[in-house]
Amino acid sequence: MTEPIQTQMANALRFLAVDATNAANSGHPGAPLGMAEMAVALWRDHLRVAPQAPTWPNRDRFVLSNGHASMLIYALLHLTGFDLPLDELKRFRQLGSKTAGHPEYGHTPGVETTTGPLGQGFANAVGMALAEKLLAAEFNTPEHPLIDHFTYVFLGDGCLMEGISHEAASLAGTLRLSKLICLYDDNGISIDGAVSDWFSDDTAQRFAAYHWNVIGPIDGHDVAAVSAAIAQAKAQAATPDGKPTLIICRTTIGKGSPVKEGTCDIHGAPIGTEAAAKMREALGWPYAPFEIPEAIYAAWDKRAQGETLVAEWEAQLAAYCAAYPEKGSELKRRLAGELPADWKDIKARLFAAAAADEGNPATRKASQNALNVLGPAVPELFGGSADLTHSNLTDFKGATPVRRDQFGRHLSYGVREFAMAAIMNGIALHKGLIPYGGTFLVFSDYARNAIRMAALMQQRVVHVLTHDSIGLGEDGPTHQPVEHIPSLRLIPNLDVWRPADALETAVAWTAAIERADGPTALVLSRQNLPKIHTDPGKASEIACGGYVVAEHGTPQIVFIATGSEVSLALQAAERLAEMMVGSRVVSIPCVERFAAQPEHYRASILPEGLPKVAIEAAHPDLWYRWVGANGAVIGIDRFGESAPANELFAHFGFTVERVVATAQALLGR
Amino acid sequence: MTEPIQTQMANALRFLAVDATNAANSGHPGAPLGMAEMAVALWRDHLRVAPQAPTWPNRDRFVLSNGHASMLIYALLHLTGFDLPLDELKRFRQLGSKTAGHPEYGHTPGVETTTGPLGQGFANAVGMALAEKLLAAEFNTPEHPLIDHFTYVFLGDGCLMEGISHEAASLAGTLRLSKLICLYDDNGISIDGAVSDWFSDDTAQRFAAYHWNVIGPIDGHDVAAVSAAIAQAKAQAATPDGKPTLIICRTTIGKGSPVKEGTCDIHGAPIGTEAAAKMREALGWPYAPFEIPEAIYAAWDKRAQGETLVAEWEAQLAAYCAAYPEKGSELKRRLAGELPADWKDIKARLFAAAAADEGNPATRKASQNALNVLGPAVPELFGGSADLTHSNLTDFKGATPVRRDQFGRHLSYGVREFAMAAIMNGIALHKGLIPYGGTFLVFSDYARNAIRMAALMQQRVVHVLTHDSIGLGEDGPTHQPVEHIPSLRLIPNLDVWRPADALETAVAWTAAIERADGPTALVLSRQNLPKIHTDPGKASEIACGGYVVAEHGTPQIVFIATGSEVSLALQAAERLAEMMVGSRVVSIPCVERFAAQPEHYRASILPEGLPKVAIEAAHPDLWYRWVGANGAVIGIDRFGESAPANELFAHFGFTVERVVATAQALLGR
Repeated sequence: MTEPIQTQMANALRFLAVDATNAANSGHPGAPLGMAEMAVALWRDHLRVAPQAPTWPNRDRFVLSNGHASMLIYALLHLTGFDLPLDELKRFRQLGSKTAGHPEYGHTPGVETTTGPLGQGFANAVGMALAEKLLAAEFNTPEHPLIDHFTYVFLGDGCLMEGISHEAASLAGTLRLSKLICLYDDNGISIDGAVSDWFSDDTAQRFAAYHWNVIGPIDGHDVAAVSAAIAQAKAQAATPDGKPTLIICRTTIGKGSPVKEGTCDIHGAPIGTEAAAKMREALGWPYAPFEIPEAIYAAWDKRAQGETLVAEWEAQLAAYCAAYPEKGSELKRRLAGELPADWKDIKARLFAAAAADEGNPATRKASQNALNVLGPAVPELFGGSADLTHSNLTDFKGATPVRRDQFGRHLSYGVREFAMAAIMNGIALHKGLIPYGGTFLVFSDYARNAIRMAALMQQRVVHVLTHDSIGLGEDGPTHQPVEHIPSLRLIPNLDVWRPADALETAVAWTAAIERADGPTALVLSRQNLPKIHTDPGKASEIACGGYVVAEHGTPQIVFIATGSEVSLALQAAERLAEMMVGSRVVSIPCVERFAAQPEHYRASILPEGLPKVAIEAAHPDLWYRWVGANGAVIGIDRFGESAPANELFAHFGFTVERVVATAQALLGR
Repeated sequence: MTEPIQTQMANALRFLAVDATNAANSGHPGAPLGMAEMAVALWRDHLRVAPQAPTWPNRDRFVLSNGHASMLIYALLHLTGFDLPLDELKRFRQLGSKTAGHPEYGHTPGVETTTGPLGQGFANAVGMALAEKLLAAEFNTPEHPLIDHFTYVFLGDGCLMEGISHEAASLAGTLRLSKLICLYDDNGISIDGAVSDWFSDDTAQRFAAYHWNVIGPIDGHDVAAVSAAIAQAKAQAATPDGKPTLIICRTTIGKGSPVKEGTCDIHGAPIGTEAAAKMREALGWPYAPFEIPEAIYAAWDKRAQGETLVAEWEAQLAAYCAAYPEKGSELKRRLAGELPADWKDIKARLFAAAAADEGNPATRKASQNALNVLGPAVPELFGGSADLTHSNLTDFKGATPVRRDQFGRHLSYGVREFAMAAIMNGIALHKGLIPYGGTFLVFSDYARNAIRMAALMQQRVVHVLTHDSIGLGEDGPTHQPVEHIPSLRLIPNLDVWRPADALETAVAWTAAIERADGPTALVLSRQNLPKIHTDPGKASEIACGGYVVAEHGTPQIVFIATGSEVSLALQAAERLAEMMVGSRVVSIPCVERFAAQPEHYRASILPEGLPKVAIEAAHPDLWYRWVGANGAVIGIDRFGESAPANELFAHFGFTVERVVATAQALLGR
């Protein structure tokens, strides 16, 4: 049952959602109305957050996976005392407001992750719950459980229809992430109408199959029932075989709107002022739009509770630091996202080792060599692979695997590229760890929107994408990424590195780790690549994203190349030198970094007057920006073939002869 | 139990897989070895195919969803009498062979779909089973069940971990696609090792939650048990509440290889000649590599059976055509992939209607208007949307919805973008229907690899991708595609149309329907766009992909634009004309079509000497190929914002003033 004040609290959420969507003449009132009692139960009775300290490390995480219900979280944040004034709610969905159409991390205090693309918030939450377990295992002591919080999720039918919900739930169940508690807004309606015609899963049975603790269905409009279910989930989490919990809350979409409740019409359009007036009458809500009585504000206010929680935690942290000074400062450093104090030395060691490497490793192997230095030295690095650990080479020496009862340094995510990427986003958002994860470059497609979300949220996430082109050989066109390198470069705020040898790979890794404001894709070869650099001092030039690798005589032409094609360009330049034609070879392992350099630097590397040939075993068209109209691009604009790699490079024209001929044609010879 | 000849038949598959991977020194022997008995049970006892007529319309479909087991299907096709000689098996994974690393549709007779990217083959099969139901509902009569076949799938742990398996299975269960029979190779091993540490689902319970008929676990190495399970599934399919079936077959990966069976080592690497010799000894197989005794060939041969099946079916088709001449010739046309005889008239009507439209519809609305003409006139069009029917506007007047007991013309796929795309691929591969489906352009990310697979397989699939840029407004950056238009253009063999008005939209639709060798993406606006064309005769120019929309005086500059930016370019050109500066406005609704035109045509549209400005509310870099070094691009290289659309266009600089200023700067004024 729901007490009178709870009803009022729920209705405050409802009317803020109705008034804001009406004011914006845009938005989704249906879900906030339907989830109002669920929100009262969770936020009033259970959620441990501190409105004045929204980033307090040990707060419970709350993820609104059905992000179109954004007005619900804005109303909650406003009412509980976060820095989100009423004026911002009045400017819902307007340019520059803190109340964007979908909740955006970094934009609104208290928003833990950006949601809207369905299913991903849920997977982010799995990442947060995993990060909690990892950090707790690393830092907590029995007396000082400094990292000890729940991760709560609201999610809807859409999230559960998306495939990523399967991937994330299956892994969360296998790992028994018991402090993950999800409330399913089971309203039976999606945009096309009543879901039974396209979504008839027995969701309770489905989640039981994943080894979840399933509660319900319960009445999602009964605050006491929802609150009791959450209490039960928390108690269950503390048992030896604790599991993640799904609470199935039967609700009515648009609950409270006499005109539209229970229909899909209320999902994605404001109800209008007339329906709002009728709703005020029906619910006995005499207040004007955006007017909330003080008593309801007072009932919602979580600031005093938050202050107490933070003060208690700070005291515990102080005691911890006194007892374990080293671990204490390490924990502080990690939560602040700062790199180890000896980071410069680590880099120097790494570059020296890479430059000294006598072999000609594939860059995926060079990456593992780098991880063998970085892994032990940077304990926040948390690795994984989507079931390709021994192909992506993401594990490092001594990296303990993650298991149900062992929260180590490397996770076999299973064949779940999309969930892996979204879980990594959740780990990064949690703070305390730098996640990296591997798959084949071609399967970045599966994860693409989560990579985009990391870029949008400016999260430090590293994607290790191996088998970078036709050079993977016999697995053929399904596995040969042709368009993927350029298409990743198109995602704003994603750095894409395609290193050419061990030193470039090492630099790419350090750039990815140093980058605090966005994700990085490391695009690596399956096949061995000739060693280019022996001087670790070259690292600073490489870090610029583009630099001169070699120059023969007075250059008449410039070759631009990346990754496996740099050595091809070097060979072509030598051939031309034998023909008394001077040239320059430029390696651009990271176009984004190079483009961010001052113009004078770029012009010094790519002089304007000289004709240019770009060479990359990928779709050519993005390179025209760099070679200009009088330039040429040697690339691949069709799908690959199944054959040994060396035959494929010849078949697709990546030969010294063709590069030389292309240069000669440009030079008019 | 497995009879002696069955053991021999299974071992023939095993040794062909071992010998071919050894010869290639590349490939995946583990799964073919593990699934050999499953293959005997299905292919010998149940599968109705015709080796000499591999495209016989009523054949059972067989999909190897775990495509890395490609040698299994190559061995099956060879042994049963398809046109795949032993020499091709000896050239496994070599350039130009018919035995690519992963099975490729159109490359090898008998391969129904290209597999390798895990989970997609399973979803393709859902599409095939759906197409069977749709065509059966449309054409079959009680006496003449012309379309009446099963769709069989082999799949592995990887397919079941992928999220797409959830989306596809959930929809298949809801729709009760009872003639879909899947055999799960439950070997407990994936690339990282024993799956229990990352994949512990109770798969039987999971599929029961989807309303599947689940059989097993059974012994996957017992031919009789597998065969009986398939028989049971077929019988169940014929019951009133028939459901799709999952048969869980417990197997041992690499079965038969005494050295490596049951380990992940055998998954992705040849076992070598020594281990092959030991295996020959262990299994009592005295034959040389690639040697198969005649008795085993004879036992496998399905040619006689196939001839009978085809002859019976042809007789039935003849009887059907005699009884229902119109439906008979319609069925033949549809299965042949030919457009209606009056296609030219349909187009003319469509273009006339679009040109006559007095309004200024959003192109998504113009698309629905086009569908209102095309839907009734082209009965093979089969629509759908990933739960955005009323946003994508994919339904047309009179389109009956698909329900469990009603196989109509439009399907609510649910919030399942990836499965929708892969199911559409399966529908197209089946033949008889042209599938199209809608989602928001930004969520093409979720479906991206299936769009790629359609392009690789050259399938006629139409993606209706609405809400094409910042013009969608308040939903904000999570929903605003910035990089998606160019990133789709990078996929080889995908045509991307971004029409500017109703006529361009109509032309785009006809181009998509006429295109028999690849998929098309229609990128459509949410917001209304000014009408540009009143003359339907302009359609032939539009069909070239790029053409001159307007010219003022003697052009000194060329504007290139697409979609919503064409009208902006037209306004800028008028402003310049007022300033006595001549210009040309070129619309390029489809870059791929334009690029495919002869050089003289392209040069006539984009004359070499003139400076060029490209305008598109998307990532700019691909346009440098077209504007050259002395050109400019007005685009968006960062994420969008949440605000009303008109404010956003101003905010991101899509204004007449900026376009004019950019032109003036290029002209040195």
